[in-house]
Parts: sequence; C-alpha cells; structure tokens
Amino acid sequence: MSAASTHSALSPPSRVLLGPGPSLVHPRVLQAMTAPIISHLDPIFLSIMDEIQERLRWLFHTSNPFTIAISGTGSAAMEAAVVNLIEPGDTVIVGVNGVFGGRLAQMIERCGGTALRLEFPWGHIIPPEAIEHALNRHHPIKAVALVHAETSTGAWQPLEDIGPLCHAHDALLLVDAVTSLGGMPVKVDEWGIDACYSATQKCLSCPPGLAPLTFSERAMAAIANRKTPCQSWYLDSSLLAAYWSERTRTYHHTAPISMAYALREALQIIYEEGLSPRYARHRRNQQALVAGLNVLGFRLLPSPEQALPSLTCVSLPTGWDDKSLRRLLLEEFNIDIGGGLGPLAGQVWRIGLMGESSRLEHVLHLLGALEVLAHRLGLSQHRQGDALQAALSTYTHPPSYPGNSTHTSCHS
Amino acid sequence: MSAASTHSALSPPSRVLLGPGPSLVHPRVLQAMTAPIISHLDPIFLSIMDEIQERLRWLFHTSNPFTIAISGTGSAAMEAAVVNLIEPGDTVIVGVNGVFGGRLAQMIERCGGTALRLEFPWGHIIPPEAIEHALNRHHPIKAVALVHAETSTGAWQPLEDIGPLCHAHDALLLVDAVTSLGGMPVKVDEWGIDACYSATQKCLSCPPGLAPLTFSERAMAAIANRKTPCQSWYLDSSLLAAYWSERTRTYHHTAPISMAYALREALQIIYEEGLSPRYARHRRNQQALVAGLNVLGFRLLPSPEQALPSLTCVSLPTGWDDKSLRRLLLEEFNIDIGGGLGPLAGQVWRIGLMGESSRLEHVLHLLGALEVLAHRLGLSQHRQGDALQAALSTYTHPPSYPGNSTHTSCHS
Repeated sequence: MSAASTHSALSPPSRVLLGPGPSLVHPRVLQAMTAPIISHLDPIFLSIMDEIQERLRWLFHTSNPFTIAISGTGSAAMEAAVVNLIEPGDTVIVGVNGVFGGRLAQMIERCGGTALRLEFPWGHIIPPEAIEHALNRHHPIKAVALVHAETSTGAWQPLEDIGPLCHAHDALLLVDAVTSLGGMPVKVDEWGIDACYSATQKCLSCPPGLAPLTFSERAMAAIANRKTPCQSWYLDSSLLAAYWSERTRTYHHTAPISMAYALREALQIIYEEGLSPRYARHRRNQQALVAGLNVLGFRLLPSPEQALPSLTCVSLPTGWDDKSLRRLLLEEFNIDIGGGLGPLAGQVWRIGLMGESSRLEHVLHLLGALEVLAHRLGLSQHRQGDALQAALSTYTHPPSYPGNSTHTSCHS
Repeated sequence: MSAASTHSALSPPSRVLLGPGPSLVHPRVLQAMTAPIISHLDPIFLSIMDEIQERLRWLFHTSNPFTIAISGTGSAAMEAAVVNLIEPGDTVIVGVNGVFGGRLAQMIERCGGTALRLEFPWGHIIPPEAIEHALNRHHPIKAVALVHAETSTGAWQPLEDIGPLCHAHDALLLVDAVTSLGGMPVKVDEWGIDACYSATQKCLSCPPGLAPLTFSERAMAAIANRKTPCQSWYLDSSLLAAYWSERTRTYHHTAPISMAYALREALQIIYEEGLSPRYARHRRNQQALVAGLNVLGFRLLPSPEQALPSLTCVSLPTGWDDKSLRRLLLEEFNIDIGGGLGPLAGQVWRIGLMGESSRLEHVLHLLGALEVLAHRLGLSQHRQGDALQAALSTYTHPPSYPGNSTHTSCHS
C-alpha cells in the first residue's frame, strides 16, 4: 500500500525492434501523441475517426462501411470478431497450425461455439482441400477461421480461393491479419473475407493499443440475425457502429484519443509510401535476411514459398543457445528478437521485419551481430562477412514493384 | 476503397476539457509517450509494469497483489470485473441510479447472471438500508455492484459500511470508481471492496486507453472456484495475472506500451502532489464552481452533501438552451463540457473538474464565459461578475487538508 520512493525518470532504451511486434515507430507517429487531448465526441475528433476509417478501408482493400479500430490490442479485435459472429450452438472450422489458430478456437469455445480444429504441423499451412473436405462433411458451418500470417511460425496462409468456397457452403470467412496488414496484400473484398482484424504494432508501425477490424455486409447480416445478444458489451459491434457511424455518433466508450492520433499518422505514412512499394520492401528485406541466416546455418520453419515477408521463423543451428544468445543480442547489440512459443520454445527464433523495422540497415545490423557472436562463441565455420555478403547480393537488382510513383500502384 | 487525398497535418485544438472526461493532461504525460517503444516482454518494460502496479496499489489504498491496468478503457475494466466474477446462474444486486449502474446490469446479464436492479432516481444515491434489505430478501447473492461516482448524475455513493454488510451475507462488493479514483479517497482495503476499477482519463489526467483494476483475495478465491471458464479470453484475470506477476511473466497480449509510459508519468505526478492535497484541491474547486453556478441559476442535481468533487451535474436554468450554448462554449471559448445522458439529455450539464482540469483558472474561465453568454443572450438578471465573485469567496481560507508536506498525508 505504500509507495516509498519517487521513481526515476522514464528512460526506456532505443531498442532495434526485430521481434514479432511491437515494431519500430516513426518519430512522426510518436510526435502525434503529444497533440492536445480533445473529447471523444469533439467534432474534430469525429473527423479524425472518419479519416482513420477511410484509410483502413484502403489498407484492407475493402468498401465495408463497418471498418473501425477496436480500443484494445490485436487479441481484443480477435475476440471482437468472434463474439459478434459466433453464438452458442454455432460450429466453426478453425485452422490450427500455431498459437493464434489455437487462440481463435479457445475464444470460439468461450462464447459457446464448437471449434472444429483442422490441425496441421506448426510451420505448415492449412491446405485448401482440407477446408473443402471439412465443409463437405459438416453442416451447418457458421464460419471458417484462418490465420493469414501465423506469428508463431511465420507461415503464410493462402486465402485467394477460400472465400468463394466458404460462401458456397453458406459459411463466413474470418481472417486474422495481425501480422500481415500493411506488410503484404490483405484483399478483403476480392478474396471474400467477411471478418478481418489486425493490430497497430506490427506492419503498421504504430504503438500497440488499437486494432483494425472490418466486417462485410454478409457478416453484418449474420450479426443482425443473431438469436442472442453479443456476450461482450465492450466489443458489441452494433454499439460500436453507432459511435463510428457518421449518422449517429452515439456515445459508447471513451476512445483512446492519443492512440487514434498515432494511428492516423502511421496510416498517413503508409499512404505516402504507397502499398505496392511497401509490400515489395517487406519481401525484399525478408529475402535478404533469409539469405544471410542460411549462411549461418539457420533454416526457415515454413517452406520458402510459404514464408511471410513480415515475420521470419527459423530453427536454431546446433549449438546455438536460445536464451543466452537473445540476451546478448539485447544487452550488447540492443536488438530485440523473439523466441519460440509453445512447443517451439528454445527451438526457433522469430525475427520480425515489419513496417519501420523492415529496413536494410536493420537486416545488416542483426546479421552483423550474429556473425560476431557466432565467431566469438565458435558456433559457425563460415568466413566472417559471408552472411552480410549473402544478404547484400539479394539487393543487386532494383526493387521489382511496378512503377515508382507513390500512389498509382496502390489501388490494386 | 480509394484514399483520394493526403490528409492535412494533425492539429487538434487546445481545448479546456471540463466535461465528464477525458480531462486535461499534463505536458509531462504527453511527453512520456514519445519515449522509444520497447517490447512488452523487455525486462525494462516489465519493471515499468511493476512501478505502475505499486502506484496503483497506493492510489487504491490496497495491498491486493492483483492490481493491474486493463488494456482498454474504463468500460473494458467494468467488463473485466464482471466477466471474471460472475458466471451463469449468479445473482447480483446492482444499484441503478444513472447510466453506469445500468451498464453494469447489462454486462451482468450478458454473461448469464441475474441482475437485481435496485433502482433509485437519477441524482440520488442507493440507500445502504435498501442494499441491506435486498441482501436479507435474496440468497445466495454473488455480489453487490455499486457506482462510487455516477458520471451521468454527479452523485457520490457512500461505501464505508457496505463491504462488511456484503461479506456478512457472503457476497462480494464490486465498485465502479471510474470518476473517483485520484480525485477522492477510494479505500479498497478499509472499505472491504472486492473488485474496483477506474479509467485513466478522469481524475488521473492521463489519455484514455488503460483502466486500473484490483481484485481482493476474496475475489480471487471466487474466481478460482468458478465452475465455468471466464467467457472473455482478452479479459481473463488468470491469464492477465500470469503476465503481470513478477514470478511468471507469461505472454498474454501485447500491452499498450506508450499508454503505460503515460500512466506511469501521470501516477508519478499524483505521487508528487500527494493524495490528501489532491483530494482537497478537487473539493475546493468544485465548491467554488458550484457557488458560481448557483448565482447564474443552475441547481445541483444531487443534494450538496452527495455531490462529487470531480463531476458537477447541474440542471439548466429556464431559458438556457443546452446544445446551442455548449456549441458557443466550444467554438467561442474553447471550453468542452458535457451534456446530459439518457433521460437527462437537454436538461443538465456535466462539468468535470478532474485532475489537471481541477484548477482555479479553469473555474474562473468557465464561469466568466457563462457570465458573458448569460448577459449577451439576456438569460440572467444577476450583476456581471457576481458568479466569479461567489466562486472567489470560497477560496478566502487556505486549503484545509492536514499539513502541506507532499507525502506524510498520503497514507491515510
């Protein structure tokens, strides 16, 4: 109950954030949070919300009216998607090939749904045929839930053909895009996604605290036809929609004002870069990283064509000790990367190149630090500099995205 | 789907925030949010969480180990308190004398509980005898839920004797302290409160986005004895405790890093002021405000001895039009106050003097603006300056809190 001493001044170090999120944040975004606080019902704040909605629709490649930022982190948006769409008695096919598919299944069960787990090895994807097979065997299926970018394994789930398959079986498609939105295409309308959510602290390079969420008209119709009220008041989309809608603006909860300022600025920075150049940058830096890591003896967990541009999960070479090496990276080189989760703890590293963190200088910094440690500790037989060399060689050709104008290529 | 234009630079105005929250934020708190982002599992961030917990215990006057900040706004903490303590089949006595008691009852019903509403007129308190009567009539009662500071009416619910009464009936006491914590005593241990939550954007003068929550050992035992899992994964206290606990630090969700920096700094500022001086300041400025408003013909909704120091709810004098006058206050004087909610819409104003907003200069600014508008629009017969004079007269005597040292008086 006592607070005995005055705490020292806040002075977190400037880490190089190359883990599974949060990612590095542009100084403009940090600066935006120093803007004066205004009320969540101030007309000027409402116009900022409109701007955020417009940009989120652009980023999700959607025209969904219900496209908002949940006042919480990515897991809050996951829960918002689940508790609004699923009610007791509903059955959902859930792809489980890592932590976050498992989390989805748990949330579905916590709201009275039945989760039919399609389990595949961690690092693999969920084969579309397995989804089709499950849809043919079980009826009715309320939704199919898939993780586009599985942050625990670095696997990139193909989605292009799943939406029509779901709709043919009268099922909704729910997609976790926490680690993909802003770093690779997430084409909600074109792919027929009905519920899609993300987080700010990954490829959007914004501090954590808000979470984009969009529902299709099909999803909104399912919500309108619920037999029971949404179990969460805080995440109830009908109440949230009344606050976010230009027509009503009914008070629901007090929006996180400073976080909204930050998100607006982060989305502006993405807009200035353009989506195609941004996606290409993420892929390019990941390819350089993987080339360098291969020289050091790391191996990608997913197959190369199923590896995410934003999050690289690699198994540790023999002799590399997870915890002590990550501690050295943090303490000596100021680099933060992620360890493995669940069954992969101690076995893999998770290296995020997301948003502002996806830069040549960070790839070289990390590979350089690993080269130093490998040589100091006798962990590798390669010639010092070879990993950096391998990374650099991937940059020989100029970026391959179509054109270099800022905006012509974004409306894809 | 298109984002046709580059948005203009972010430049929200410097409003004088005298509504029901958010309140004004000290520049040190805004500045804290520009500190570099580090990971939610970085040892330095974990030590910042420890500092926040220590200070929240001090502010709640509690030694509860489970004292954390929920990653959401005040309504998320309300939902966290409810969904962790209440499960299907539980019956809860809920004091309903305004919006937030009603919201509590809705949340209880959304998680399968039965809410026994003790309804009293808005602006009144829930009489302790009514609670005792309900506890005597119904058994078993899982909890009694009360709003300490009803933000929709400005009523101050007495709590001192309710805890022992609840415990004698084997019921938990759940308290909403959203608009009281940091502005008036909230003595969790002494009053026998089992679950208590607040929000950052009221008397803590921090941007919205986090919400303090504390559970007593009695509450933790009730949670450990649940028959069903908590319906919310995001707000599940057992998962949250494993992340906040010094012993385990198990990853649950990505904490809002910048918001945690802001809360740490806001708590530091409160600590430097000291609790007793802070509580006295809130009371003193509210008394000055009420004296001035009385001259203009406004009348307190609650009885004076049941009026909150942090939020003053007054009925509008005859002839004063709610919306047009609030628009003039905002556009001409840059002052933001709140209108009435629900049945009080158009009837009352809600004026918050919370944290940094509770200052003599803001009281004089608001009263001065109201004097100008009253005279311009012919709304009052009083002599111009009388409202300011009445407010100033309440400051004649020096503050009455015991002593003026910063910390000797805080451990009350």
